Amino acid sequence: MSGQSGQQIARLRETVARLHGELTRYGLVAWTAGNVSARVPGRDLMVIKPSGVDYDDLCADNMVVCDLDGTVVEGDHSPSSDTAAHAYVYRAMPEVGGVVHTHSTYATAWAARGEAIACHLTAQADEFGGEIPIGPFALIGGDDIGKGIVSTLTGHRSPAVLMRNHGVFTIGRDARSAVKAAVMCEDVARTAHLARALGQPLPIDPADIDALYDRYQNVYGQRAASPTTT
Amino acid sequence: MSGQSGQQIARLRETVARLHGELTRYGLVAWTAGNVSARVPGRDLMVIKPSGVDYDDLCADNMVVCDLDGTVVEGDHSPSSDTAAHAYVYRAMPEVGGVVHTHSTYATAWAARGEAIACHLTAQADEFGGEIPIGPFALIGGDDIGKGIVSTLTGHRSPAVLMRNHGVFTIGRDARSAVKAAVMCEDVARTAHLARALGQPLPIDPADIDALYDRYQNVYGQRAASPTTT
Amino acid sequence: MSGQSGQQIARLRETVARLHGELTRYGLVAWTAGNVSARVPGRDLMVIKPSGVDYDDLCADNMVVCDLDGTVVEGDHSPSSDTAAHAYVYRAMPEVGGVVHTHSTYATAWAARGEAIACHLTAQADEFGGEIPIGPFALIGGDDIGKGIVSTLTGHRSPAVLMRNHGVFTIGRDARSAVKAAVMCEDVARTAHLARALGQPLPIDPADIDALYDRYQNVYGQRAASPTTT
Amino acid sequence: MSGQSGQQIARLRETVARLHGELTRYGLVAWTAGNVSARVPGRDLMVIKPSGVDYDDLCADNMVVCDLDGTVVEGDHSPSSDTAAHAYVYRAMPEVGGVVHTHSTYATAWAARGEAIACHLTAQADEFGGEIPIGPFALIGGDDIGKGIVSTLTGHRSPAVLMRNHGVFTIGRDARSAVKAAVMCEDVARTAHLARALGQPLPIDPADIDALYDRYQNVYGQRAASPTTT
Repeated sequence: MSGQSGQQIARLRETVARLHGELTRYGLVAWTAGNVSARVPGRDLMVIKPSGVDYDDLCADNMVVCDLDGTVVEGDHSPSSDTAAHAYVYRAMPEVGGVVHTHSTYATAWAARGEAIACHLTAQADEFGGEIPIGPFALIGGDDIGKGIVSTLTGHRSPAVLMRNHGVFTIGRDARSAVKAAVMCEDVARTAHLARALGQPLPIDPADIDALYDRYQNVYGQRAASPTTT
Repeated sequence: MSGQSGQQIARLRETVARLHGELTRYGLVAWTAGNVSARVPGRDLMVIKPSGVDYDDLCADNMVVCDLDGTVVEGDHSPSSDTAAHAYVYRAMPEVGGVVHTHSTYATAWAARGEAIACHLTAQADEFGGEIPIGPFALIGGDDIGKGIVSTLTGHRSPAVLMRNHGVFTIGRDARSAVKAAVMCEDVARTAHLARALGQPLPIDPADIDALYDRYQNVYGQRAASPTTT
Repeated sequence: MSGQSGQQIARLRETVARLHGELTRYGLVAWTAGNVSARVPGRDLMVIKPSGVDYDDLCADNMVVCDLDGTVVEGDHSPSSDTAAHAYVYRAMPEVGGVVHTHSTYATAWAARGEAIACHLTAQADEFGGEIPIGPFALIGGDDIGKGIVSTLTGHRSPAVLMRNHGVFTIGRDARSAVKAAVMCEDVARTAHLARALGQPLPIDPADIDALYDRYQNVYGQRAASPTTT
Repeated sequence: MSGQSGQQIARLRETVARLHGELTRYGLVAWTAGNVSARVPGRDLMVIKPSGVDYDDLCADNMVVCDLDGTVVEGDHSPSSDTAAHAYVYRAMPEVGGVVHTHSTYATAWAARGEAIACHLTAQADEFGGEIPIGPFALIGGDDIGKGIVSTLTGHRSPAVLMRNHGVFTIGRDARSAVKAAVMCEDVARTAHLARALGQPLPIDPADIDALYDRYQNVYGQRAASPTTT
């Protein structure tokens, strides 16, 4: 691939490789688990992490370009074993530009119990607009995980789903937004766990959750300078 | 702004930018959440973090100078979305020179339950002089958070308030003191959580709390060399 | 030792020294506790950590070469105080090329209760193929620990055993695989602890555990490029 | 001070300054809390941390030399506010060459409940020879803390005491040994907390605790090369 499209993919390889550093910085992944992908805008392609490569060794060059059926189009490595799930989400949700998967500890503990995280924190209202939902149990290797993500998140405010007995998938308009959702999901899951461990967290009025969500999605950050910064 | 006042503000931009590094060092913040501000001594101005900028990218140049109504006076970025709360505190509490806000995990778990942290630790007696109190639930965007902070902390020894379902605000005679209070608040909240998790912590005699608080506020640190070091 | 065999041992000294850095990176060890060893392929020898040396000071040169009775063959330091256990495993399990020992916190907490970690996570099914079992209480200094490891892990899918009141031993086809198992064991133990702390994790169908284990052991990672990467 | 004694003190200033880095590395201290001291062998002097100085700024030059009444003999800074406690220990326990104080989180949680840590871990048997005991509540500023440490640890195998509602003091034949005890105390306190959180840890036979303690104190580490390495 050359020309404008080649440059776009080269930039996304850089971005996706670098964003994996946020997963290790925030302790969301162990060993080679977890992965980030980005849709190539305007193309039926995505850039995704290679399978089983050390986080320290991830770089633009070993990212893998796949089509939206998960077939490798460019790259010397096998793509993430979660490629099918990422591809399904991009096919089914055209507004999604980035997908992240982790087994981050606290979020996965809620997922192991099959328990959604009710909204008792203003930070959760801001980012997730209410509860963080539970998705179904699904085996890896086909479309089941992708279907579970899409059916749970379609029409839901939350960009994160806790897949039962498994871990977290997050979506965003781009890869950076999906990574942010993964970071905030673990942060919220941890605080909610601790709050519940010693008693019952206090409710927030649903109208207040709506107001917080609306404000955060529309006012927060540097509007003029970089509209997509969050 | 130029001359003596300009130099004073330049120094505070450096100080405030640098102090944000303590929030990440101690794991008090995730992504771009949390913020530090400093009053410009003798001026109705404050220096505060820009909204939604990565912690790695914070520097003297992108700090924002606002007046005490929260209007930007100097700077290319939008100020923190919590600017109104900081401004309210500076207007209402002239002795306060620094304000810090975090959603640090353990402290926010207490805030989610609306439960004050009773004083069972000598370190808490030293820094907070007794319990760390709960402030009201308040929505962002007006003066409600600021009013909740001021009404809770006025006449209270604690420089930290746990805002219900939200997080921590701390105050200090300068920004460094407020950051220290934020660090110690999380440290105390974590230890108190763990103590309670397996039973009931033992009480400390109120007279002993008074003695510890008095000594720590008046004896600790390097007196002659740097009276404000704590 | 010189020639081909000397080069092989020199490489293993490098590998074993470097892999200890993964134990500190993931917080699995405190002070000088914990150790990694590797079998010298085709020789009745192993390379192991010296006893009581700081992690910062570990290097190829201070690794110790022992025979499979634990007698030092090459090296200026005393070998790890757990050398007898490593040696026993290599004698009894010819397919094992690496052994790791830690007191990693969450796994050791399960070991202190003598409680196996039931499989409620897909990541545990992937790596451990089911529960992580408990081994007997055994005193250091003879073959008891080695016997406990071997009797527990023989015929078991799990490469990790929780030795009662003690800590974790893991095995692998090479030292890197054993280190990976130690990292994943603590990750799984932590998530399982948190899941249980607030309720009961949901079961996974045993047939699904089998399917996950089979796929992960046979499909995951970079097949052609490096068949042993996991 | 000059000559041989001056060189000895210069070396101890370096050692004590550097050992404070272990307190931050293991997360045992927040802000400026915690301190390490070393007795000057053969002299009625000790080297101790200055009060309220940032950990990043600690160096040989700002360590403080005090006599065993806590009076400053050499140094431009005020000594640690815990100097009286360190001094009391050196006066009462001539075999002690190093003292460490922290408010490390898990250990302090046990201290807040006034609960000794019973021995359910072989690592605890190794280092502490049994339970880690509770000392009395004592106010800072006189000899009360020192007396509480000495009365609790005299005739006890444990080099660590959990001072009620306060934190940890550890002793050792030198400063490094006392720092190791502080690191292992928190490690053991954390594992014991987690073990207890989900049930009851299994007992270890007292004779086995004795055997473990005896072996670890007399066999572990590099005997010939460096007899005091632990």
